Amino acid sequence: MRTTVRDVIAALTAPAGQPVPEQTVDGLLFGDPDAEVTGIVTAFMPSQRVLEEARAAGANLVIAHEGPFFSHHAAFVQTLEDDPVWLAKRNLILEAGLALYRLHDHIHRYSPDGIAEGLIEALDWTRFAVRHLPAAAIIVREATTVRAVAEEVKARLGLPFVRVAGDPDAPCRRIGLLVGNRGGGANAIPLFGGERLDLVICGESPEWESPEYARDAARQGRARAVLMIGHAESETPGMRLLARRLAAEFPHIPVRAADEEPVFTWI
Amino acid sequence: MRTTVRDVIAALTAPAGQPVPEQTVDGLLFGDPDAEVTGIVTAFMPSQRVLEEARAAGANLVIAHEGPFFSHHAAFVQTLEDDPVWLAKRNLILEAGLALYRLHDHIHRYSPDGIAEGLIEALDWTRFAVRHLPAAAIIVREATTVRAVAEEVKARLGLPFVRVAGDPDAPCRRIGLLVGNRGGGANAIPLFGGERLDLVICGESPEWESPEYARDAARQGRARAVLMIGHAESETPGMRLLARRLAAEFPHIPVRAADEEPVFTWI
Repeated sequence: MRTTVRDVIAALTAPAGQPVPEQTVDGLLFGDPDAEVTGIVTAFMPSQRVLEEARAAGANLVIAHEGPFFSHHAAFVQTLEDDPVWLAKRNLILEAGLALYRLHDHIHRYSPDGIAEGLIEALDWTRFAVRHLPAAAIIVREATTVRAVAEEVKARLGLPFVRVAGDPDAPCRRIGLLVGNRGGGANAIPLFGGERLDLVICGESPEWESPEYARDAARQGRARAVLMIGHAESETPGMRLLARRLAAEFPHIPVRAADEEPVFTWI
Repeated sequence: MRTTVRDVIAALTAPAGQPVPEQTVDGLLFGDPDAEVTGIVTAFMPSQRVLEEARAAGANLVIAHEGPFFSHHAAFVQTLEDDPVWLAKRNLILEAGLALYRLHDHIHRYSPDGIAEGLIEALDWTRFAVRHLPAAAIIVREATTVRAVAEEVKARLGLPFVRVAGDPDAPCRRIGLLVGNRGGGANAIPLFGGERLDLVICGESPEWESPEYARDAARQGRARAVLMIGHAESETPGMRLLARRLAAEFPHIPVRAADEEPVFTWI
């Protein structure tokens, strides 16, 4: 059975329950849609290492949540000119003959959001997920503390550190889970009141937005905290879940989730 | 001698060597410009705790680098509606009779940038600062490693943790110092080539921009790393330096730099 890049893309886009924006960042950034797929690697970030891993594994289709060139917006590449990191990475993609599909807007529009679902599964919180909003999942669990939740998240995801703003010893029962960079103030702050949250867990947020809100809330004696686990850390499980689904859908194609390291070393 | 809020503002804005944007975020957000100043507190963030500290100290003018309501943009407050954290904080400002002046665009246009200068002083790197660009200071020092620089920054600023993207053991001699959120890709990435940098030190950057660039560079064997020390951590020393300057300029007014804790607990 011959499966083309185009066939896999159709399987990736079909589950989006809502229309993607007209100016979507999703698309085939490199490669031939009519090429036969020899193997698939899914990743949060199509990093140099992930691309090398795909080449070494004989996989010719990389499906990544973010773009390869250090910005949400593809146009940023025009400013890189003769940057050697960009050049070497682009040349690797071309020389390895890799197809690179960016899957961002579509997977966030799966029902529920495919990235959030992967994180919830990895945390073993599926039974606590009471509602899926477009940009947040609402988790309601037995009463505990922010610190206990932080320790649980660290252990489940294998993280060396997480960051808490607000009172780590505040009580915690209602949690808003916001993957990626959805932790910014405009998304996160209204959820505390609207969803009566004790805690927002997010990938990242500008440090002077939601975290400063949580700090002030704690100073006022309010149990409204923010737990930042890292952008990649919050979205990688969704791309791992995708790999499992693609393996089931295309059983004749080797599919793997990339084995990438954390972007940061904590010193 | 009677000094008004207006007098202090004049002293804050005069040193800006370049015009501020027409839509500046700077300005007197609360208070009466003709009130007599009884004491001054400078701070990176006018947090609940900083405002309480000012009230307790009998200071009626707070000069803060960021705005009080969890966003770079003052208009964000309109979305907070009846948020209790916002309400309580606003009421504290009004009831304490505090004047609150935001000093962001002007101090970044001092010559050199008053926020960068404070950080360079706190790091004891003044002798290494070879050039001041509008959004970065170029530091050239004896050859060492990224890890050694990270340890030195931690020790000098008293930080519990910093984050490095790229190879911590790469050599390091030329450093770009970018305060606040200037660490994003559009600012930081071109500096590596343009200024032949080994390391960018910044407050914060979107995790998928400069840090991913540094990760790929390291994988390619290039010594281009990013050290993220925290937004507040990178800008607080500048507001401390400002307090010392105001104390010299207004010797009859008590001036203090706020004694705020880190916004994050690392777990």
